[in-house]
Amino acid sequence: MKTLTVDLGSRSYPIHIGAGLLTDQHLFKNIIGNRRPVLITDENIAARYLRPVADSWKIPESDHLILPPGEANKTLATLESIFDFLMKRRCDRKTVLIALGGGVIGDMVGFAAACFQRGIEFIQVPTTLLAQVDSSVGGKTAVNHPRGKNMIGAFHQPRAVIIDTDTLATLPAREVTAGLAEVIKYGLIRDADFFSWLEQNIDALQQLQPTTLIEAIAGSCASKSAVVSADETEQGIRAILNLGHSFGHAVETATGYQTWLHGEAVGLGMRMAADLSVLIGSLSADDAQRINRLIDRTGLPNQLPANSDPQRLLELIYADKKTESGTLTFITMNGIGNATINKGITDQQVLQTLEQFR
Amino acid sequence: MKTLTVDLGSRSYPIHIGAGLLTDQHLFKNIIGNRRPVLITDENIAARYLRPVADSWKIPESDHLILPPGEANKTLATLESIFDFLMKRRCDRKTVLIALGGGVIGDMVGFAAACFQRGIEFIQVPTTLLAQVDSSVGGKTAVNHPRGKNMIGAFHQPRAVIIDTDTLATLPAREVTAGLAEVIKYGLIRDADFFSWLEQNIDALQQLQPTTLIEAIAGSCASKSAVVSADETEQGIRAILNLGHSFGHAVETATGYQTWLHGEAVGLGMRMAADLSVLIGSLSADDAQRINRLIDRTGLPNQLPANSDPQRLLELIYADKKTESGTLTFITMNGIGNATINKGITDQQVLQTLEQFR
Repeated sequence: MKTLTVDLGSRSYPIHIGAGLLTDQHLFKNIIGNRRPVLITDENIAARYLRPVADSWKIPESDHLILPPGEANKTLATLESIFDFLMKRRCDRKTVLIALGGGVIGDMVGFAAACFQRGIEFIQVPTTLLAQVDSSVGGKTAVNHPRGKNMIGAFHQPRAVIIDTDTLATLPAREVTAGLAEVIKYGLIRDADFFSWLEQNIDALQQLQPTTLIEAIAGSCASKSAVVSADETEQGIRAILNLGHSFGHAVETATGYQTWLHGEAVGLGMRMAADLSVLIGSLSADDAQRINRLIDRTGLPNQLPANSDPQRLLELIYADKKTESGTLTFITMNGIGNATINKGITDQQVLQTLEQFR
Repeated sequence: MKTLTVDLGSRSYPIHIGAGLLTDQHLFKNIIGNRRPVLITDENIAARYLRPVADSWKIPESDHLILPPGEANKTLATLESIFDFLMKRRCDRKTVLIALGGGVIGDMVGFAAACFQRGIEFIQVPTTLLAQVDSSVGGKTAVNHPRGKNMIGAFHQPRAVIIDTDTLATLPAREVTAGLAEVIKYGLIRDADFFSWLEQNIDALQQLQPTTLIEAIAGSCASKSAVVSADETEQGIRAILNLGHSFGHAVETATGYQTWLHGEAVGLGMRMAADLSVLIGSLSADDAQRINRLIDRTGLPNQLPANSDPQRLLELIYADKKTESGTLTFITMNGIGNATINKGITDQQVLQTLEQFR
């Protein structure tokens, strides 16, 4: 087991990464102490992990809440059903919510913990690669509004993150690949050595080689932790975590969140960010080629969906909440491992980049 | 105009208190800068103040949201209608919500601001005495759950509090009296001089004498600010603000929140807290008499509703969220102006106190 710490003063917390942690009674007992755990998961995860986790961690069935799965249920209505459950079960401020599942469960349970009695503790137990390397760390919680993703939420840090790499063995290959997009992102934004390491180990990762997986997840979480520690509520530098996301979100929105996984859209978005960085002269063509070659090996998409309209995608980028007060904000690279916030990108440069990927 | 500061580091903010502030363009412009204000109020307040405020502050009608009034509407459903409005009006992170109204509006708009896009700014413009001296300061925001008051919420500090004492002229006398209960509370918990000042000025206050009002509100806000600065999220000392509230909440719950105003219940609760403090030997009988005499002059209640059952009230005190893990927590007084958190009160002492007020 590897343990990292997210350094946030009085709100600091550990990330434990290893095989078999889902049934590690000792670890769980150490974290939870004598607080009361309430286990919240979704129907899909429950079928596989509810029994072993609840048995190991000794959480009585009356304190299990199973939610409908999927992004479409990440709503205020589902949130309300969590509150109803907690009130009915007479939970108090000493209750700890356990978020067992992917990013949807983590975001929603985290937000419920942020609001219930003005804030109780919660533990992230992510079961997808994407959630393990990204959404479970850093305290961003939210539900969706019909008019926009993650529009209603809070910054609320977990008490601990428990990452069991065994859960990846049963994850569909496409979801593993999507998670790898975010892993590669950490190499691009602030860790050239990690990027080189990924070039050597990407095949072992795709084959889910256990020690390589633990190292990749730990490397990703370490980068995310460092950025979050520097800027918890995204006043500035934290935005570099959005590398590839402006392009990616536009593609997701244009395709109605149906055809592409988030990580796939980010994968294409990172290729575009590299292209844009070459265009503005901050990244060499050689480095862009290295980036594209690594992404190629994962099998992540290399072009826009058929019939994509660059002008329409540009409009969606403007409509994104990350585009404040009419100014385009992109994350570009000054070389591999050195991302920066760039407010000087023109519409023309965005359109030119999009055209390259039609 | 008097201005105080709530000292919370980077989240510090001013409280402006004076006559005519609701139409003070200059003050508002100074606070709001070039951010976009959205004005949220309820039907009752709108009838009286929406037009003059919106005109003075130049907030276009399309950015006014008028909610149904009253505690019964302080729900997740109303909160959702705020989010719908903000999304429909394409509000972004630079929007500032203006909460114009009593405690219900302040609590709900504050919570909406806490959650919208993970936190935007808001300004408290309280129009009742209770909200001016209590709920608008300190950042506690919430909505009710059918099974409990203020169960879903956040700590989210306003950017400023604007208190216009002219609004009290049209407040029903009973609501002024209820507000005075909280004013007296500040004298009891940490400011014996303020208590003495109240003994001399209570009649002028009830007659809404303008300079006396400003002084009383400023004294109350100063005390609340000091306590909030010391313990923003109620890990400890902030609980002294709950003097009289354990008893008071039990009465409110027993009467279904229909017959008593919150301040009235707190008024009786403070008499009980004084009685209990005498019983445990921490307050002299003379001081208890001074306290009761001052409360008498306001006309706040001096006995429990007819048919009250002390045993049932004790159960409600146990069910209150402030009673954690089965331990009774009361705020008692070591003399006037010196409240303390007391975890050593027995059921018997509570029952004996309740009996005195049947």
